Formats: sequence, C-alpha cells, structure tokens
Amino acid sequence: MDNRPIGVFDSGLGGLTAVREIHRILPHEDIVYFGDTGRVPYGNRSRAIIRQYARQDAAFLLKQGVKAMVAACGTVSSVAGDLLSRELPVPFTGVLEPTVRAALEATKAGRIGVVATEATIRSGAYAQLLKRFAPAVSVYSQSCPLFVPVVESGFMLEHPDITKEIAETYLSGMRACGVDTVILGCTHYPILKPIIGEVVGEAVRLIDSGRETARRCRTLLEEHGLLAQRETPGACTYYVSDRIDDFSKVAGIFLREDVQQEVQLVDIEKEGGAPWPTV
Amino acid sequence: MDNRPIGVFDSGLGGLTAVREIHRILPHEDIVYFGDTGRVPYGNRSRAIIRQYARQDAAFLLKQGVKAMVAACGTVSSVAGDLLSRELPVPFTGVLEPTVRAALEATKAGRIGVVATEATIRSGAYAQLLKRFAPAVSVYSQSCPLFVPVVESGFMLEHPDITKEIAETYLSGMRACGVDTVILGCTHYPILKPIIGEVVGEAVRLIDSGRETARRCRTLLEEHGLLAQRETPGACTYYVSDRIDDFSKVAGIFLREDVQQEVQLVDIEKEGGAPWPTV
Repeated sequence: MDNRPIGVFDSGLGGLTAVREIHRILPHEDIVYFGDTGRVPYGNRSRAIIRQYARQDAAFLLKQGVKAMVAACGTVSSVAGDLLSRELPVPFTGVLEPTVRAALEATKAGRIGVVATEATIRSGAYAQLLKRFAPAVSVYSQSCPLFVPVVESGFMLEHPDITKEIAETYLSGMRACGVDTVILGCTHYPILKPIIGEVVGEAVRLIDSGRETARRCRTLLEEHGLLAQRETPGACTYYVSDRIDDFSKVAGIFLREDVQQEVQLVDIEKEGGAPWPTV
Repeated sequence: MDNRPIGVFDSGLGGLTAVREIHRILPHEDIVYFGDTGRVPYGNRSRAIIRQYARQDAAFLLKQGVKAMVAACGTVSSVAGDLLSRELPVPFTGVLEPTVRAALEATKAGRIGVVATEATIRSGAYAQLLKRFAPAVSVYSQSCPLFVPVVESGFMLEHPDITKEIAETYLSGMRACGVDTVILGCTHYPILKPIIGEVVGEAVRLIDSGRETARRCRTLLEEHGLLAQRETPGACTYYVSDRIDDFSKVAGIFLREDVQQEVQLVDIEKEGGAPWPTV
C-alpha cells in the first residue's frame, strides 16, 4: 500500500489521454502530471535532445515524490524508454510495450499498422518491438506530422471533413496493405479515433496507447504492492512549462471534460536539472 | 564599407525565405543564419519565453561578428522586436515594420488582412502598427496554426488540393470582408503564396514579409555605410540548434534550390547565454 502519487509526463498535453484512462481504472490514485508545453513538440527533435528532455521531465516528477512513473508520450517511450527503465529508482512504463502487446493480442491477420510522430516512426521502436515479440508479423509504419497540430489547434473539431481527408492521405496505403490492427502510437491520436476509424474501416482494431499504458500502470502498482488505499477519489495535480493560460482549453480536449483544476508553471530546465538518485 | 556578415535568425528554417531575398538583392553580402530548430516552433509559446529565446539567438549571432541583425521571424518581430531594437549594438530590423509599410502602400480599399502564427496574431502587433501608421485602415487578422507544419512536413507539395482546402478555412472570412491586400506575417508563408493567392483571388496583393525585410535590410546597410565591397558573391553560413541531418531537405523547400552547404550545430542555451555588449 502506498498513497504517494503516480507521475505522468508528456511532451505536451496529449499525455492527458493516459491520465484520463489511469483515473478511470485507478480512481483512488493521486496523479502528478507534467506537460512540457514549453518545449513541445518532441516529435521532430533529435534523439540526443529527446533523451535529455526525458531525463529532466522525470527528474522533476521524482522531486514531487512519485511512487511510479509513466512516460505518456510515444516519442519519449520510443527514444528514451530504455534509459528511463534502466535509470529510474521507481517502477516505470512507457506507452511502447503495453501497446505492442495489445496489438499482438488483437491481430488475426498478423498485419499491424503503426501511426505516430516522425521521431517515433524514424526510431523504428514500434516495428522493432513488434518483430521481437512476433517475428512473423508484418508492420506498416506511417508518420502523420499534421495530426498533433490538427488536434492541438482544435482544427479537427471545426473541420472534421478536411481532417478526414488529411487522415486519408496518411492511412490509405496502410488500408491497402490489409492491416487488421492499427497502433495509435502517439497519445494525441486517441482524440482522432473516430476519424481514423472511419478511414481505415470498422473491421480494423485501433489500439489506444493511453488506455493500454493505464492498464500496464495498474499491473505495475499491483506487482510492487503500491496501490493506494483510500476511500476518496484521487486528486490530479498539473504542471506545465509554458502557456499556462491555455491549459484549461487544450486540457479539456484531451480529458474530454471541463478542467477547473489549477495548473502550475515549472521552469523545467532548472527544476529538472539535478540527476535523480540512482537505485 | 563593411565586409562583415549580416546576421539573420528565425525560430526554424522559415527565415531562409528572407535569406533568399537578401542574397538576391544584396548578392555580395555574407550572411550568417541561425535557425533555432531545437526550439521551433516559437508561434505557440508565451511572450516571456519568446523574448528570452530572441535574446539568446541574437547573442549567438553577435558572437559571429555580424554588422547588422535581421529577425526573419514574424513571432520574434512581433513579440520581441522592441527589445531587440533597443538593446542591440548593431542596426536591426524585424519583419514587422517593413511589411506593414509595404501593405499600406499597396492597399487602395484600406482593408488589409494579416495571416500569421497564433502568437503573432495574439500579440496584435501587426494590427497595432497598421493602425498607428494609418488609423483609418481596417484590419482582418487570422491565425493559421496548420500552415507551418503543412510547409515543414512537405504536405503541401504532395497534397496541394487539401492544402488549398485548409487555406480556404482560414481565409474565406477574410475574403468575404473585401480585403485587397494580405500580409503573409510568417516567413514560412511565402512558400504557400500560390495557394493563398488562389484562395483570396488574383486581385488581392500578397505582401511577402521576407522580401520586404530584405529591402529594409538593404536600406539599413546603405544608411549606416555598411554595404560590403567585394567582387565575389557573398557566402552563407548556416547554424541550427537541432536536426542537422534534415537541414538540406527542409532548407531546399525554403531556398527553392538544392542546398549543398554545410550546416553547423549550436547549443543555443550555452552559446546564447552571455548578454550582448550594450552600446
């Protein structure tokens, strides 16, 4: 039993889709969220920079006394997941492994599509892990650089028709290859699920990385005896590194509810500066 | 006469549209370009962060011994132009004032549209300056958050039809208001000029901030007696703060030519750390 909070971070606010799922299946857990809105997007940055940022983000959350850590970010999980697994003094999960396992359980044809940011696709992390667990599987990867700004700017709410056309350009090749399962490898993408579903067709299973990661987080807490024990619902504390004024509006898109909670501003390059204690 | 280089910087590589124009009208000038690709985009960041980044970018270029400075970035010019004008020890121009002057010369109806990033539009800088120079003018402002990723990811080259539909969503209201002049208030947007032109109609004059800024830069050098005197074409040196590998591909989009030159990586938070010498 452990009533300390779970730490969840993302390059921006997309990781809130994972927060929503964690809160849904673990309603008594406190959560501390850090969204690196001052340095978003990570998806088009280099490997070295992404690893440096991931270390800083995790260091900040460790200072908040978290009992477990979730990188709710496809880019961080793909590019720095190994580093965080190895170095962090608390149980850790990224989105990569739980999502890959769920996709392999779902596929019947053995043909899996992966959609994600440029950095995630370029890292090859999803394809490699799919192949490691199931060498016979075929993987079709596609980066979708417009999906994050389409979600964050609210464009998809105002123009679902054009958003669908954009999705069509990214996904038609994948559909033609006969995939029966598509990994939504970026935590922004669950917001586009209805549109992506229409484009790839109803028969295709969409694997939501936020949802799978929340499940993995629950298993981690159970295994380590870290589940919270309280009667009341858990509280969520939000930190961002920039644009505190826009938080409620954008967070509402991802959490699918009105966000009334306060959010606090962090100077991540200062607060994330110290290395974490090693185990 | 002064053979030192001109310093040009932008949040990313969009400012290369201004480099292209400067090189075209001032072919004997050396140029040092810094593109802050490690922290791009500035357009959705807070005022405080943008001003801090602008100071660092300019500090780095001063260390390269530049004789004049151009902020080839709508966001920096709008949010930190005042600060740079005041503090820099060399002649400075942003894109804002030259572009506004050109738009006021071009308009006959006195109705001017401004398209730019969210931060630029939110700052109100274009509208305020237009009104200061010409109080009777009507200004229609529109942020276009998808335009930068549409250009940088190459989407507009592969899907001009959908890019036109996206442009239509941003520009139809402006067209209905009867503007006869539209300011392209972000240095990425000249790349979209043909598509924007089709959407707003042939009769509407598009003001290219890169081109107007290059003209202003020439005037500045003339006024301060800083024009270079050499027979050979000027050289361009490129620095970026991340993703050095992608430079040639993306730079080619903005310079509209194959980029063979080398590019060097800068740790901007270190190199831009020291304040510039005051006048």
